[in-house]
Amino acid sequence: MTAPDPSFVSFPTRLAPITVPIALGDRSYDIRIGAGLLDDPATWQGLPRASLATIVSNVTVAPLYAERLAAALAPHYGRVLRIDLPDGEAHKDWQTLDLIFDRLLAEGADRKTVLFALGGGVVGDVTGFAAASYMRGVPFVQVPTTLLAQVDSSVGGKTAINHPRGKNMIGAFYQPLRVLCDLGVLGTLSDRELSAGLAEVIKYGPIADEAFLGWIEDNLAALLARDPRALAHAVRRSCEIKAWVVGQDERESGLRAILNFGHTFGHAIEAGLGYGEWLHGEGVGCGMVMASDLSVRLGLMPPAFLDRMVRIVERARLPVRGPALGADRYLELMRIDKKSEGGEIRFVLIESLGRAVMRPAPDEAVRATLAAHTG
Amino acid sequence: MTAPDPSFVSFPTRLAPITVPIALGDRSYDIRIGAGLLDDPATWQGLPRASLATIVSNVTVAPLYAERLAAALAPHYGRVLRIDLPDGEAHKDWQTLDLIFDRLLAEGADRKTVLFALGGGVVGDVTGFAAASYMRGVPFVQVPTTLLAQVDSSVGGKTAINHPRGKNMIGAFYQPLRVLCDLGVLGTLSDRELSAGLAEVIKYGPIADEAFLGWIEDNLAALLARDPRALAHAVRRSCEIKAWVVGQDERESGLRAILNFGHTFGHAIEAGLGYGEWLHGEGVGCGMVMASDLSVRLGLMPPAFLDRMVRIVERARLPVRGPALGADRYLELMRIDKKSEGGEIRFVLIESLGRAVMRPAPDEAVRATLAAHTG
Repeated sequence: MTAPDPSFVSFPTRLAPITVPIALGDRSYDIRIGAGLLDDPATWQGLPRASLATIVSNVTVAPLYAERLAAALAPHYGRVLRIDLPDGEAHKDWQTLDLIFDRLLAEGADRKTVLFALGGGVVGDVTGFAAASYMRGVPFVQVPTTLLAQVDSSVGGKTAINHPRGKNMIGAFYQPLRVLCDLGVLGTLSDRELSAGLAEVIKYGPIADEAFLGWIEDNLAALLARDPRALAHAVRRSCEIKAWVVGQDERESGLRAILNFGHTFGHAIEAGLGYGEWLHGEGVGCGMVMASDLSVRLGLMPPAFLDRMVRIVERARLPVRGPALGADRYLELMRIDKKSEGGEIRFVLIESLGRAVMRPAPDEAVRATLAAHTG
Repeated sequence: MTAPDPSFVSFPTRLAPITVPIALGDRSYDIRIGAGLLDDPATWQGLPRASLATIVSNVTVAPLYAERLAAALAPHYGRVLRIDLPDGEAHKDWQTLDLIFDRLLAEGADRKTVLFALGGGVVGDVTGFAAASYMRGVPFVQVPTTLLAQVDSSVGGKTAINHPRGKNMIGAFYQPLRVLCDLGVLGTLSDRELSAGLAEVIKYGPIADEAFLGWIEDNLAALLARDPRALAHAVRRSCEIKAWVVGQDERESGLRAILNFGHTFGHAIEAGLGYGEWLHGEGVGCGMVMASDLSVRLGLMPPAFLDRMVRIVERARLPVRGPALGADRYLELMRIDKKSEGGEIRFVLIESLGRAVMRPAPDEAVRATLAAHTG
């Protein structure tokens, strides 16, 4: 399961837009990565025209970028509507989804209406599911504005809302027409959001690309300082690996699940504390530490791997200890993970650097991991 | 747009199960039609096994057939769960959908769980959308128990819930694994439900098969008397035509819209009166009269066609006059139809017997039609 083409060696020396294709037959599309994409007329070429475009954003991101996006879209659409959602994972629910449906119907949006998701993972997931479901499907474009969304959630067509009983439980596989990663917008991210995004960047190393893990370690200071070239490479390599995985397994029948390294523990933390307490990336950061511990505990990896993962997660300014929910509660929350089968939790574990596997683990081992890394 | 193979001439002389294939590449499946399918072990062969099967039905149908279905499934699944929804179009909404999600999550249903939709169009549409969205998609089987569901709504993968602002506005194209039309269950239908189903049977004549229209006229008394052979043929020929249309245009980018003959007016009646006042098939019956009137008014068809459609709809014991909502309200409701584009209503009209077209119509013509057939 090692990703081919270690293109990290071609570290970009300029920031001309990069295109990473996602090969999914008649649902194929491009990820475009570059600084200033929002202001580049070429960005909008080839997208379907319609009488209505709708920018779905949130109350935090919209004041920063919605007007620029609306101005860029105006030449191509009869009308550009804006819908601002409340901000945060706590609002990734049916009520927020229905805000979109209600507004689209009130404005007479038809099946050709193009939705533009302008925001982080929550905006992208909710807007994507709205696009999948409105009139049984309208086209949509991802315009991710957080590092986390650029390297992970906006790519690959997973859309969802949360259910009180579990994260991302209601949703669809529904591909966007295009993903536009404008690196310029990362400048307004909070430090906390930047670190949360780095969790998903780090993830790609152990699951698919040992060399990329080394590159991240070497460049973590530059990434935290938002060096544009370091960010450009991190986004590009992350998207390449994600594109490679998704192109082989769009609907997560196998390989794709490796992208959930750290997520089984992380989702339990998010759900256990109530959505929005921890950022998704914080849960993933801490969850990777736990999943690394479990990989070591089950004899798949040497103890030095856990130390290495703790160190990189810490250096990315992410939590390495989970909240004291109690092991029973963790296990209960993890049993309703989507990767579970017949009530058996299936963990994404590392079996060698750059190679992940999915397998169950004895409850005692999981409890030992939780004892070591929570509270 | 005339359906090939006028197999109505091969009127079945016995009720051995009939299979009508739906060709949709890797989403292909069979419709099986026959008396006593629920009790035939062959019915379940080839379906995926899992630790959990879930029968979703409603409080009216479940007491009649859920136990039989549960007994038939028991050998193949570790556990068979039952979820009974409230009955009726008024409950085809998010609250009902969430009943399913909540119960599935509470019971630990995983991605392999197979849903069985046991009921009419509402149960099938809601269960299908639940299957499309639960954990981003689980397998499901349609077990339609009304004539309307057997000849139309269970076939072709359209799933949806209603929104207060419009019918079937939120949903997905999501194909079942199989459709099981047990003709035996039609015996418990109310006369009103039987007539509502006949509306969708009649529909297939003018849009795709002139000879079938003649057959329906000749056999309407037998159909109303629930003659098993007449019902078997009506279901079979309807499914053949639907399979032919859906096989060419799964996602309703063109041809498939002809299946909505009568539905633009019909949906407006349903929404205007409040869901559940009129049955869907009653709206379609009356809507076909209106769409026929409009076809005549626009010079596509001779006046005798309207007379013929009024006569057959009346004989099927369906309404031929719409409620007095006022023309403005009708137009407003029809403008949010999913076939509308840029606020322009697109009607399914008949241009010759067995051939439908989709086109806009001048407001004056629509108002004249409404004046002639409402109030």
